[in-house]
Amino acid sequence: MRILHFSLSINFLHIMLLLPLSIRGFSTKSLPTIHRILVPIASGSEEIETTCITDVLTRFGAEVTVASVTSKTVKMSRGLNIEADCLITSLPFPASTYSAIVLPGGVPGVNHLADCETLKALLLEHHEQKGLIAAICAAPSKVLSPLNLLNGSPCTGYPSPSFNELIEKNGGILSSDDVVYCPKNNLITSKGPATAMMFGLTVGEYLFGEEKAGEIAGELLMLEEGEE
Amino acid sequence: MRILHFSLSINFLHIMLLLPLSIRGFSTKSLPTIHRILVPIASGSEEIETTCITDVLTRFGAEVTVASVTSKTVKMSRGLNIEADCLITSLPFPASTYSAIVLPGGVPGVNHLADCETLKALLLEHHEQKGLIAAICAAPSKVLSPLNLLNGSPCTGYPSPSFNELIEKNGGILSSDDVVYCPKNNLITSKGPATAMMFGLTVGEYLFGEEKAGEIAGELLMLEEGEE
Ligand SMILES: [Cu+]
Repeated sequence: MRILHFSLSINFLHIMLLLPLSIRGFSTKSLPTIHRILVPIASGSEEIETTCITDVLTRFGAEVTVASVTSKTVKMSRGLNIEADCLITSLPFPASTYSAIVLPGGVPGVNHLADCETLKALLLEHHEQKGLIAAICAAPSKVLSPLNLLNGSPCTGYPSPSFNELIEKNGGILSSDDVVYCPKNNLITSKGPATAMMFGLTVGEYLFGEEKAGEIAGELLMLEEGEE
Repeated sequence: MRILHFSLSINFLHIMLLLPLSIRGFSTKSLPTIHRILVPIASGSEEIETTCITDVLTRFGAEVTVASVTSKTVKMSRGLNIEADCLITSLPFPASTYSAIVLPGGVPGVNHLADCETLKALLLEHHEQKGLIAAICAAPSKVLSPLNLLNGSPCTGYPSPSFNELIEKNGGILSSDDVVYCPKNNLITSKGPATAMMFGLTVGEYLFGEEKAGEIAGELLMLEEGEE
């Protein structure tokens, strides 16, 4: 079996070769299989990143809530119209019942996310409760960094000088990996569109374990199939 | 520069090394830079595949029309709600002005696409006019194959025995590549979610040329960035 995403193979080999999760610092305790995931979006969020989060985590069995911080129907960064499940101010479940908050990138989407007082409060509360926070592309630098959530954490984001500067200014430690897990801060970050599927898979692996992640990766065709 | 998508490197190297497009059989004549793309969707279409088509082609500069064959707001295969630009029966532009029809997969989405008389007529007409038709995942086998559009063409789709059987039954010649271009029938097909971004990029390259494709691939982070 050959790994499709070559540069992701270090991240990924442990799934296929069944090496212990502790290599990446993931907890190996037995976890409940029901997880609610909050995916905040806004006008101008990135649609590939958004679907790679919602689709992949739904395949894992997560209950995904897509919550808009702008209007309920939003025009995404490349023109697709998505109807959110709700506004961020009226989640269908108590915020404390969500296992993870996962942020897509996309400009100007991240600016709306960064400006939303409700979301900022949710992120700080979730972090305090040691919940998982994950962010991709422009979201680590523009949303998490100003809230001081990257301070002291290895992390990544879309590789542009201005985004990198924002991350480092607030104490984030830039990594060159495509997906970065920081156990200390319960944080998963990633670079952008081409790494979004692996980002979604990594969040799923964190919550549902490596066996399930291997299954979903196969279904998504992330593993080379060879001749059939 | 290292190629992120290892198994796609044969397909892709010609972009980076500026080898002639004729290697893959693409026309190298100078093309107009405005292209309209029709993306038919339905309730149960695959959202990663759909956004990898619409987002990537919008980045190329295409005018993308997302047209539903069911209701205007559709629940996609993994729960995301997308609002189409229009119904397939009321396109904003004459059907003959579209450069390509690009079909996402997803079950039961493909069944709705396959059952839609308007779409079937559009596909047959577009094929007759030598327009580009592209399809991914379950769409080649379930939508194109019954219309005889794969007959005699090298092609691919989601690698399941039942889909493969449908393709071969109607004269399609299965290839093991992730994205397959058949110049004879003006057809681009691809496997599924993990190959969807490269599929979108290949359609974009066909329409806008290799230089633009290299630029968009870089922006999407499909090429390894190395140290920055
Ligand atoms: Cu972005």
